[in-house]
Amino acid sequence: MFKKRHPKVGSRPGTLVIPKQSPEPRIHAIRYSPDGVTEEDITDVERMSQAFDEGAVTWIDVQGFGDRSIMKRIGEIFQMHPLLLEDVVNVPQRPKTESYTDQLLFLVRMVRRTDDDELDMEQVSMVLGKTYVLTFQERYGDVLDPVRRRIRSGKGVIRTHGPDYLAYAIADTIIDGYYPILEAIGDRLEDLEEDVVMNPTPELLRQLNQIKNRLVNLRRGVWPQREAINALVRGDFDAISDEVRIYLRDTHDHCVQTSEVAEMYREMVTGLMSTYLSSIANRTNEVMKVLTIMASIFIPLTFLAGIYGMNFEHMPELHMRWAYPAVWLTMLGTAGGMLIFFWRKGWLGR
Amino acid sequence: MFKKRHPKVGSRPGTLVIPKQSPEPRIHAIRYSPDGVTEEDITDVERMSQAFDEGAVTWIDVQGFGDRSIMKRIGEIFQMHPLLLEDVVNVPQRPKTESYTDQLLFLVRMVRRTDDDELDMEQVSMVLGKTYVLTFQERYGDVLDPVRRRIRSGKGVIRTHGPDYLAYAIADTIIDGYYPILEAIGDRLEDLEEDVVMNPTPELLRQLNQIKNRLVNLRRGVWPQREAINALVRGDFDAISDEVRIYLRDTHDHCVQTSEVAEMYREMVTGLMSTYLSSIANRTNEVMKVLTIMASIFIPLTFLAGIYGMNFEHMPELHMRWAYPAVWLTMLGTAGGMLIFFWRKGWLGR
Amino acid sequence: MFKKRHPKVGSRPGTLVIPKQSPEPRIHAIRYSPDGVTEEDITDVERMSQAFDEGAVTWIDVQGFGDRSIMKRIGEIFQMHPLLLEDVVNVPQRPKTESYTDQLLFLVRMVRRTDDDELDMEQVSMVLGKTYVLTFQERYGDVLDPVRRRIRSGKGVIRTHGPDYLAYAIADTIIDGYYPILEAIGDRLEDLEEDVVMNPTPELLRQLNQIKNRLVNLRRGVWPQREAINALVRGDFDAISDEVRIYLRDTHDHCVQTSEVAEMYREMVTGLMSTYLSSIANRTNEVMKVLTIMASIFIPLTFLAGIYGMNFEHMPELHMRWAYPAVWLTMLGTAGGMLIFFWRKGWLGR
Amino acid sequence: MFKKRHPKVGSRPGTLVIPKQSPEPRIHAIRYSPDGVTEEDITDVERMSQAFDEGAVTWIDVQGFGDRSIMKRIGEIFQMHPLLLEDVVNVPQRPKTESYTDQLLFLVRMVRRTDDDELDMEQVSMVLGKTYVLTFQERYGDVLDPVRRRIRSGKGVIRTHGPDYLAYAIADTIIDGYYPILEAIGDRLEDLEEDVVMNPTPELLRQLNQIKNRLVNLRRGVWPQREAINALVRGDFDAISDEVRIYLRDTHDHCVQTSEVAEMYREMVTGLMSTYLSSIANRTNEVMKVLTIMASIFIPLTFLAGIYGMNFEHMPELHMRWAYPAVWLTMLGTAGGMLIFFWRKGWLGR
Amino acid sequence: MFKKRHPKVGSRPGTLVIPKQSPEPRIHAIRYSPDGVTEEDITDVERMSQAFDEGAVTWIDVQGFGDRSIMKRIGEIFQMHPLLLEDVVNVPQRPKTESYTDQLLFLVRMVRRTDDDELDMEQVSMVLGKTYVLTFQERYGDVLDPVRRRIRSGKGVIRTHGPDYLAYAIADTIIDGYYPILEAIGDRLEDLEEDVVMNPTPELLRQLNQIKNRLVNLRRGVWPQREAINALVRGDFDAISDEVRIYLRDTHDHCVQTSEVAEMYREMVTGLMSTYLSSIANRTNEVMKVLTIMASIFIPLTFLAGIYGMNFEHMPELHMRWAYPAVWLTMLGTAGGMLIFFWRKGWLGR
Ligand SMILES: [Mg+2]
Ligand SMILES: [Mg+2]
Ligand SMILES: [Mg+2]
Ligand SMILES: [Mg+2]
Ligand SMILES: [Mg+2]
Ligand SMILES: [Mg+2]
Ligand SMILES: [Mg+2]
Ligand SMILES: [Mg+2]
Ligand SMILES: [Mg+2]
Ligand SMILES: [Mg+2]
Ligand SMILES: [Mg+2]
Ligand SMILES: [Mg+2]
Ligand SMILES: [Mg+2]
Ligand SMILES: [Mg+2]
Ligand SMILES: [Mg+2]
Ligand SMILES: [Mg+2]
Ligand SMILES: [Mg+2]
Ligand SMILES: [Mg+2]
Ligand SMILES: [Mg+2]
Ligand SMILES: [Mg+2]
Ligand SMILES: [Mg+2]
Ligand SMILES: [Mg+2]
Ligand SMILES: [Mg+2]
Ligand SMILES: [Mg+2]
Ligand SMILES: [Mg+2]
Ligand SMILES: [Mg+2]
Ligand SMILES: [Mg+2]
Ligand SMILES: [Mg+2]
Ligand SMILES: [Mg+2]
Ligand SMILES: [Mg+2]
Ligand SMILES: [Mg+2]
Repeated sequence: MFKKRHPKVGSRPGTLVIPKQSPEPRIHAIRYSPDGVTEEDITDVERMSQAFDEGAVTWIDVQGFGDRSIMKRIGEIFQMHPLLLEDVVNVPQRPKTESYTDQLLFLVRMVRRTDDDELDMEQVSMVLGKTYVLTFQERYGDVLDPVRRRIRSGKGVIRTHGPDYLAYAIADTIIDGYYPILEAIGDRLEDLEEDVVMNPTPELLRQLNQIKNRLVNLRRGVWPQREAINALVRGDFDAISDEVRIYLRDTHDHCVQTSEVAEMYREMVTGLMSTYLSSIANRTNEVMKVLTIMASIFIPLTFLAGIYGMNFEHMPELHMRWAYPAVWLTMLGTAGGMLIFFWRKGWLGR
Repeated sequence: MFKKRHPKVGSRPGTLVIPKQSPEPRIHAIRYSPDGVTEEDITDVERMSQAFDEGAVTWIDVQGFGDRSIMKRIGEIFQMHPLLLEDVVNVPQRPKTESYTDQLLFLVRMVRRTDDDELDMEQVSMVLGKTYVLTFQERYGDVLDPVRRRIRSGKGVIRTHGPDYLAYAIADTIIDGYYPILEAIGDRLEDLEEDVVMNPTPELLRQLNQIKNRLVNLRRGVWPQREAINALVRGDFDAISDEVRIYLRDTHDHCVQTSEVAEMYREMVTGLMSTYLSSIANRTNEVMKVLTIMASIFIPLTFLAGIYGMNFEHMPELHMRWAYPAVWLTMLGTAGGMLIFFWRKGWLGR
Repeated sequence: MFKKRHPKVGSRPGTLVIPKQSPEPRIHAIRYSPDGVTEEDITDVERMSQAFDEGAVTWIDVQGFGDRSIMKRIGEIFQMHPLLLEDVVNVPQRPKTESYTDQLLFLVRMVRRTDDDELDMEQVSMVLGKTYVLTFQERYGDVLDPVRRRIRSGKGVIRTHGPDYLAYAIADTIIDGYYPILEAIGDRLEDLEEDVVMNPTPELLRQLNQIKNRLVNLRRGVWPQREAINALVRGDFDAISDEVRIYLRDTHDHCVQTSEVAEMYREMVTGLMSTYLSSIANRTNEVMKVLTIMASIFIPLTFLAGIYGMNFEHMPELHMRWAYPAVWLTMLGTAGGMLIFFWRKGWLGR
Repeated sequence: MFKKRHPKVGSRPGTLVIPKQSPEPRIHAIRYSPDGVTEEDITDVERMSQAFDEGAVTWIDVQGFGDRSIMKRIGEIFQMHPLLLEDVVNVPQRPKTESYTDQLLFLVRMVRRTDDDELDMEQVSMVLGKTYVLTFQERYGDVLDPVRRRIRSGKGVIRTHGPDYLAYAIADTIIDGYYPILEAIGDRLEDLEEDVVMNPTPELLRQLNQIKNRLVNLRRGVWPQREAINALVRGDFDAISDEVRIYLRDTHDHCVQTSEVAEMYREMVTGLMSTYLSSIANRTNEVMKVLTIMASIFIPLTFLAGIYGMNFEHMPELHMRWAYPAVWLTMLGTAGGMLIFFWRKGWLGR
Repeated sequence: MFKKRHPKVGSRPGTLVIPKQSPEPRIHAIRYSPDGVTEEDITDVERMSQAFDEGAVTWIDVQGFGDRSIMKRIGEIFQMHPLLLEDVVNVPQRPKTESYTDQLLFLVRMVRRTDDDELDMEQVSMVLGKTYVLTFQERYGDVLDPVRRRIRSGKGVIRTHGPDYLAYAIADTIIDGYYPILEAIGDRLEDLEEDVVMNPTPELLRQLNQIKNRLVNLRRGVWPQREAINALVRGDFDAISDEVRIYLRDTHDHCVQTSEVAEMYREMVTGLMSTYLSSIANRTNEVMKVLTIMASIFIPLTFLAGIYGMNFEHMPELHMRWAYPAVWLTMLGTAGGMLIFFWRKGWLGR
């Protein structure tokens, strides 16, 4: 279900709506250059303005929006446009790329599996400046630890590039996170494929509906990302160097592929649902056949028995010696005839 | 249901068709500048021409079209093109942006919930001039009080901007009004999701159909708005300053998001409807199973009882001592056999 | 059903196929300028070339194509391209705008309700020249009388504009004619909405199918018009002045709106059809419940009665004093048990 | 079913795959100018190079590809690109227009009705050179005789135009051939519309499926033609004169119209299919009602009769004088009650 | 099911994920010019750099990625961008064309039938350099032997063209491989068409679902190829000569045609599935008719027999001489009446 924090209708643009249950902001800064890395937990928001360094890239990660005054202060320190700050805080927004003077806003949708096997989708907002990347997340925790490790270890090229590469690395990592989720759904579908024919319970239908809703959500998270990233690849924004654009091309590929796979899975779920309906119809047909066969065989016989259970005085058959066996023979004949009839119809022997 | 006041076929362009039950026009003017605000209820339409002031922004709000001569006179005072005035009065038109000499026409669809929980959609027409914004509404009441309060209080930037910002503020407030409506529908769908499997009554189907029609209406209200606002964002019209275009970009985002959510909900309703059909089929299947089991067990037994209810003279079994218990045993055996058969088929035990 | 007069396969381009039952041509000319109006029924086709006047606009309306030689002669007099004339006569063509040297061909689809409540669609072809508009209709009668009255009365601006305005007025009037048709369909759908749940007869389904086909036809009539009119609005053709282009923008709006409404209604019909299917399934379910309840209660009781109708010599129960009432009690108990079972399943009490 | 001759995977480009059962090539040349016409059956392929004449248009028609060496030799004589010749011979290709040095390849799909009322679709390939048109057809026979007659008779403008007009005339004639086919399908659908409600047999469903497949095939044949012809109309190719482009505009209209009609019919078939399903459900419902009414009335009565057929010694009712008529009254009352119940449910009297 | 090897979330760009079960790389080089061909199995990867020759084209084919260090070394020798190498190894990627400095990456999806009649889809990656084409395949074996034979034999034009023609020949051969697969599916569908009406078993539905999934997979393999090849045809990349672009146009045609055929077959499967559902409903209807007829005829008769099986003392009919035959007559009459009723309803006689 789509749950959007929306400000009271008619609020001033830039009105922040802190998501309920969003915890206190935790601010962490990583400053790196080819020469080294320094990290700092920023507890006093005013220190943020001193977290920078000429000739270094600074990644400031803000997790939790639970203190309105801090969020507003961050907006002031980094001279963010009120609408930019609103998009960061009033989650979820549609993934997009938007340029402001000196800053590029880049919204992506992160997906993770929760402990009780639900999907947790969270907006990660990046503000890309000349020498820094700010990231904002509504809740603690993310999938970005590998990026942090790459910075700390200095392996790969990340420390030798600018903040645009860092933004790429973050977006790429988030999009990569869609693959294991989709893979798990694919495995689940493979399992359900058999059940739908063999064991079509209402519970199964409920599960299919649930998977379908998840796929719709996933696709809605990744689909607008395509366009957002494509705008960067095309070179609409100066803040992205040509070299990083080649890297973003790769991320764009993955957006396209994941949304295609989500779409394909969704069609499969639709197919399974209609198979489910067919299976029910089939089963009703089976049930009806059993009833029809049983009733069609015994109802005439019972009628015959009923005839000779009548108490009329003048029923000559009752006194004939071979009448009883003759009735049995007639009955067996009738039953046999019905069986042959059903056999020919293909209703017996399945 | 789409209810459009349309002029008699072949009327002259500019023919006004006053909506039935549209009340007497109430005209209210708010004139503001960074220095202050003055308000006035305009009872004599001729006073409208004097409501302006150099160096101030004037918002004249006309609610109710119930007096043709007043509407025509307003058109004359503001030198509106007859087709512009027609679009304002002959509601609903498709949301759009259209430029005329010196004026920009901007139609948006406002949605509110009525007291009896219906959706009330109403066209709000804005005419944006050099120093003024005219708004027109078919009925009294709207969602724009927060905008009026912002003007009066002088908080935020609204008093320091021109009429283009006012037009933005009005459009933005109207679009924001879609969120609580969609949220309520989303909550309702969440409730219905369970009922559809557990309690699939025709009444439920009626409700789903109703929700679907509402979503179609909402989407039809907001979808063409996207294009209308995008034209402003792209800068097709001079009357909109660059700064306000950045604000309109935010409103555009919300149009896209609300129409996507409406679309997503509509797909969910479609899914629920097909689940409903499956549930009915499932229930019929259940009913048939009960019938088949009962009939298949007792019909053969009744036949057996019928046999020994026959009155033939020569039925040796009737005189055997153990025949009666033997028949009972046979019957129990038959019934047991049927039960095992049904158990194996999985028709028992749920 | 689509009924197109098509020439024999392989005919020369320009081959005219007079629609069957198209009556004798009736030709009527209206010549007007700001100063006055003169009208004339033209009985001799050769007089057409003298119907013109410098400084005046002439509207020549041809109704009925039932005389090939007259149609050909008109083509010669006005120097029409053979393909233009073919498009005029071999109706219906797809609505379109097409330019020829000195002439603009403008095809629109007119819709009217017939006396027996059917839709009557007819192509109205306009040939727009420097000082004239020719209109062609397959059958007598149209919705254009209001335009004629506006010319005669001199009210409005029509007499002060050129032939492009006349063409606009004709097209606009024709498109306006879609609104009452759609409104009637909308009212009809509102009525059927209840019947589909309450009284789902095959006749109802037939009516829904019929409405759907009408909507498809309406949409096919109006949809290509959008593009045809848009080409004029965009200014692709010199024959349309800037002022008239503003008027055509209004007509374009109406095309878009009517085709959207037709589309929306069509979706509603589809929804009603699937509701219809659900209703049938529901009813079958109801029927089955009644059968199952009746059969499940009485079949076991009948079996019991059958038992004690057997004629075995040695059936001790038969001679017991309380056996008969005991059987009754057993039967009532069984029936009560079944009723409780069905009650729990929710099959009783609806 | 789509039957495409495809070369062995990995064959060299230009590999010809002669369609099975394609007969020996028959080559016929028509050479015409405003002054006259000469025709010739070409039996020796080498003579083809001499079939031309300065100042005349030559149409060489090749029917049947059943001799690979002849086909190859034709390719050499006319200096065709190997891929052009491949497209001509390895039918069917998608309809398209493609330019090669000095030649324009123009593929269209011809449709005819066969004697046993099947659709016969055949690719007609045109190679348009400076002074000639080559046409190629897999099988003997086509719909082009009217074009040949127009050339021979010299009526119309065909003899005064170049080969581009001839190519137009051929394409136009082929597209015109779709109309009678569609008309026949439309008539058939009108007939089936009633049967689907009144007489929904599986045979009917088979016929609907067959019509649907035909419509899909027709649409696949004509849809890509639109783009192919539009490319010519737009003037992408020099070989087409401005005048002929106006003629092709007409053919383009017909492509659009026929594909729209095919699409509309396809939607109607889909509608009929779902009506068919509804009809079946309706009929099952009817059947069930009869069963339920019969069973619900007689099963309780039979039970009652069973009660008094029991052989208990102590059944006081058996000895009462009015018991028998009382039972009859009870039975009639029960039956009457049931009938009233069913009447109220609306199950009787349909 | 979509099975994508994806690197651990957050890995560095360029991280290679060797597909499980991908065997040891086998490297084969073919070097050819108009003058001759030399071939070589390259066992030491370092020799690759010497496999080239000025004035010759070299095709190096790498099958199997099962040795990470070799794959990395190949990347270094050919100075591949890390992302290019990642796309080659981390299969499947979406088919695409991408340019890097001095190299063009061209991904296509190859399809083959496996021995147990499954579809085997495999990515073939081509890296097109100035004088060479590198191809990469995850598993041994491909459909490219005909291309190798054409090089060796020197027939056709392949040896006289550059590496761009070789890339074309490979892509063309792979796309050609879709035709026999589609043909087999088409034949299968033709067979199933009858079964669906005659013998609608759940097994059949399973097969239809399987075919549908295959068609979806095929279409997903070939659809993005269209765009990839079209980019080459349009001339976006210098590495492709004008002459080869004409050849690629042919391959593009085949991509369009195969994806259209796959789409058409998919629609046919959908149609068959809904026919299947109709068939089941039809069969249930048939079953119900038999039951209803049997029950409706015999239940009233059994009731009648039950009446005269009652043991009341005072039942005058029991003692009448003609009562028994009269009952028989009544019964025959009732049965006859029911039969006529059913006959009129059309339930008998088929
Ligand atoms: Mg806002
Ligand atoms: Mg969204
Ligand atoms: Mg987080
Ligand atoms: Mg990635
Ligand atoms: Mg998987
Ligand atoms: Mg990649
Ligand atoms: Mg059903
Ligand atoms: Mg109007
Ligand atoms: Mg609208
Ligand atoms: Mg209002
Ligand atoms: Mg807003
Ligand atoms: Mg909600
Ligand atoms: Mg925003
Ligand atoms: Mg023609
Ligand atoms: Mg049409
Ligand atoms: Mg008429
Ligand atoms: Mg109008
Ligand atoms: Mg209405
Ligand atoms: Mg259409
Ligand atoms: Mg208007
Ligand atoms: Mg080939
Ligand atoms: Mg094709
Ligand atoms: Mg032929
Ligand atoms: Mg034609
Ligand atoms: Mg035409
Ligand atoms: Mg990666
Ligand atoms: Mg893919
Ligand atoms: Mg391989
Ligand atoms: Mg090929
Ligand atoms: Mg085939
Ligand atoms: Mg080709």
